[in-house]
Amino acid sequence: MRASVFHGKGDIRIEDVPDPRVEQPTDALVRITHAAICGSDLWFYRGIWDWKPGYRTGHEFVGVVEDTGAEVRTVQKGDRVIVPFVFSDGTCEFCRKGLQTSCVHGNAWGALRADGGQGEAARVPWADGTLVKVDDAIAEDPAKLAATVLLSDVLPTGYHAAVCADVQPGKTVAVIGDGAVGLCAVLSASFRGAARVIAIGHHEKRLDIARRFGATDVVDSHDPDAADKLLDMTGGGPDCVLEAVGAQGGLDLATAIARPGGAIGYVGVPVGASIAPQRIFGQNITLRGGVAPARHYIPELQPAVADGRLDASPVLDMRVGLDGVPEGYAAMDGRTAVKVLVDLAA
Amino acid sequence: MRASVFHGKGDIRIEDVPDPRVEQPTDALVRITHAAICGSDLWFYRGIWDWKPGYRTGHEFVGVVEDTGAEVRTVQKGDRVIVPFVFSDGTCEFCRKGLQTSCVHGNAWGALRADGGQGEAARVPWADGTLVKVDDAIAEDPAKLAATVLLSDVLPTGYHAAVCADVQPGKTVAVIGDGAVGLCAVLSASFRGAARVIAIGHHEKRLDIARRFGATDVVDSHDPDAADKLLDMTGGGPDCVLEAVGAQGGLDLATAIARPGGAIGYVGVPVGASIAPQRIFGQNITLRGGVAPARHYIPELQPAVADGRLDASPVLDMRVGLDGVPEGYAAMDGRTAVKVLVDLAA
Repeated sequence: MRASVFHGKGDIRIEDVPDPRVEQPTDALVRITHAAICGSDLWFYRGIWDWKPGYRTGHEFVGVVEDTGAEVRTVQKGDRVIVPFVFSDGTCEFCRKGLQTSCVHGNAWGALRADGGQGEAARVPWADGTLVKVDDAIAEDPAKLAATVLLSDVLPTGYHAAVCADVQPGKTVAVIGDGAVGLCAVLSASFRGAARVIAIGHHEKRLDIARRFGATDVVDSHDPDAADKLLDMTGGGPDCVLEAVGAQGGLDLATAIARPGGAIGYVGVPVGASIAPQRIFGQNITLRGGVAPARHYIPELQPAVADGRLDASPVLDMRVGLDGVPEGYAAMDGRTAVKVLVDLAA
Repeated sequence: MRASVFHGKGDIRIEDVPDPRVEQPTDALVRITHAAICGSDLWFYRGIWDWKPGYRTGHEFVGVVEDTGAEVRTVQKGDRVIVPFVFSDGTCEFCRKGLQTSCVHGNAWGALRADGGQGEAARVPWADGTLVKVDDAIAEDPAKLAATVLLSDVLPTGYHAAVCADVQPGKTVAVIGDGAVGLCAVLSASFRGAARVIAIGHHEKRLDIARRFGATDVVDSHDPDAADKLLDMTGGGPDCVLEAVGAQGGLDLATAIARPGGAIGYVGVPVGASIAPQRIFGQNITLRGGVAPARHYIPELQPAVADGRLDASPVLDMRVGLDGVPEGYAAMDGRTAVKVLVDLAA
C-alpha cells in the first residue's frame, strides 16, 4: 500500500510500504478513508524532534474495518470507525479510569511503533479497546463524516483542556493559541456553557474562526501588554485558562493571568518548556492537563457532532488526496492552512 | 512590648517595639499566649529572602483578645483565638470561596506589613474575617491549647497538601519531606483514610514521628534510587504525592513518581525551583496546591484536634519563652529541633 514516510526535516514522501494485515487476534485492519495533519506533526517536520528517515507519519484517521482478529468483539468488517490518536487495550487500570493515553499496552501511531495514520490502511492493535464506531447519522452525511477525523485528536484535545480547567456554565475562559487545538478549545468552552471566551492569538483568519466558535473577545498574543489587558478585562484573571501552544510563552502567559483559585488546562505539548511555580503556588492555581484521552471523550462528543451542536469542521481549511500530503505539511508549516484534511477518495 | 526582630542573616533579637492597639474599627488586639517558629522562617534567617534589618518575624500564633474595634462582631475581649498565618477580610470573592490567602485586603504577618507573631501582642486587621475562637474543650487542656498554634499554619498546610492531591480512603500516598509540614501531611493523609502512606525523608527521629502519625513505609530521600524504589513498591507510583519541601529535588521527585492520572499536592514554598512538565503532561498528573488557606480549614480541623483524632503535637519538640526565640531559630536551622513552641508564659 501507499503511505506517508518521513525522510528528514521538511521532507515527507508518499511511497510503497508493506501491506498491513491482522497479526494478533485482538487486531483489526482498517482501510483509511480520511486522515489529517496535526500541528504536533510539525515538531518532527521542522527537525525539532529527533526523528529518523523511514518513520511513518500521521495519527489522526478514520476508516472502514476490512478484517478483524478472532477475539475482536465490538467491531466487524464494514463498520466505519474513528481511530483515537493512541491505541489502548481497553482493560488496564488506566483504560478503565478513562486515561487510555496511559494504557500499559498502548502507544501512539507512527514512527516505528505502529502504522501511521497518513496512508491507505493501518493495523489497529487492541481493536476493541481502541476503535469507536461512527454514528449512522454521521455516516450518511459526507461533510460530517469527513469531520469525524477531528474526533481522533484535536476536538477531544481541545475539550480535554476545557475539562481540565473545569470550564462550567457562567465561567470566564481564556484560550491561548489559535491553532486547530486552540480553536477546538474555544468551541469546547462555548459548548460547556462558558459565559465569556477570550481567544488569544495573532492570525486574523483563525481568530475569525474563533469568533464563529463562540469567542466573545479576542486578544492579540503579540501585544506586549497582553497579560495586563487580560487581567484588566477580566477583573483579575479568567477562572479557566486553556493553554493550546506548549511553548514557553504560552505557559508563562497562562500562569500570569489565571485567576486566584482558578485552573489552567494545558494540552499544548510542552517541548523544551518549564513552568515557574511561584505565582501559581501563591494563588493556588491548579495545573491540570496533558495528552488527551481521545478514546474516553469520543462517545461523549460524537452525539453532539452528529446533531450539529459541535461543528469543528471550519478548522479543516485545506483538502488534499494522499499524494498531496507533502504539500499539506508545507502549508501547515507556512501557516497558510489551519489544518489539512487528507481525503483518501480524492 | 517585646517582640522578635530580624537584624540580618542568623541574627534574631528580642527587643522593645511600639505597643499595638486597635486602629481600625475592624481590628482586634490579641495578647499572644503561644507562638511557633516555622520552617519557612528559615528562608530569611538564612539570608535567602531579601529581608531588611528591623523586619518583624513570626506568623504562627494564638492568644487572647484584649480589645476590639467598634465593628468587630464575632470575637470579644477575653476570647481565646487562633490566628491564621494570613489575615483576611472574610468578605471578598476569594474569602467567600475559602481561599483567604488570596484575600484582596489580606496579607501575611511580619516584615513591615503587620505585627509579627513572635511577640507579646499583635494588632489583627479584619478580626471577623481572620480569627477563629478556640473550642472550650481545648481551652481547658493546657497541652492541647499549646498545640492549637499548629492550626495557625503547619497542620492546615499539611492538610491542604492532602486535599489538593485528593487523598481519599484507600489511596496510596507518598509524602516528600519530613519537616513539620511533611509530618502534618502524613498525619492528614492518614486522617483522610489513605490505605498506605509512604514518608520520604532522611532524619531518623522525624521519620519515627511519621510512623506515629500513620506512615506505613519510610523511604530515605538521600537514596539515589529513591524514585525507582517508590515506583516499584507502589506498582507504578502513588496515586497522591504530597510535596512539602519546595526545593528542586522535591518537585523533581514528585513529578517522577506520581501515578498516571494522579495528583501532586504541593505546599513547600517553591523558592528558585521550576517544574519540568514533560512527564506530568504525558501522564496527566494534576499539580495543585500553594499557600494553604488555614482560615478555611481551621473550623473543619479544630474538632478533630479537640477530640484527639488529629494530634500533631509531637512535632513541637522544643519549647522556649520569648527570650528563647533566637535560640529556637538556631535549633531549627541546625535541625536539632523539628519545630519550636514559643510559650509566652514560660
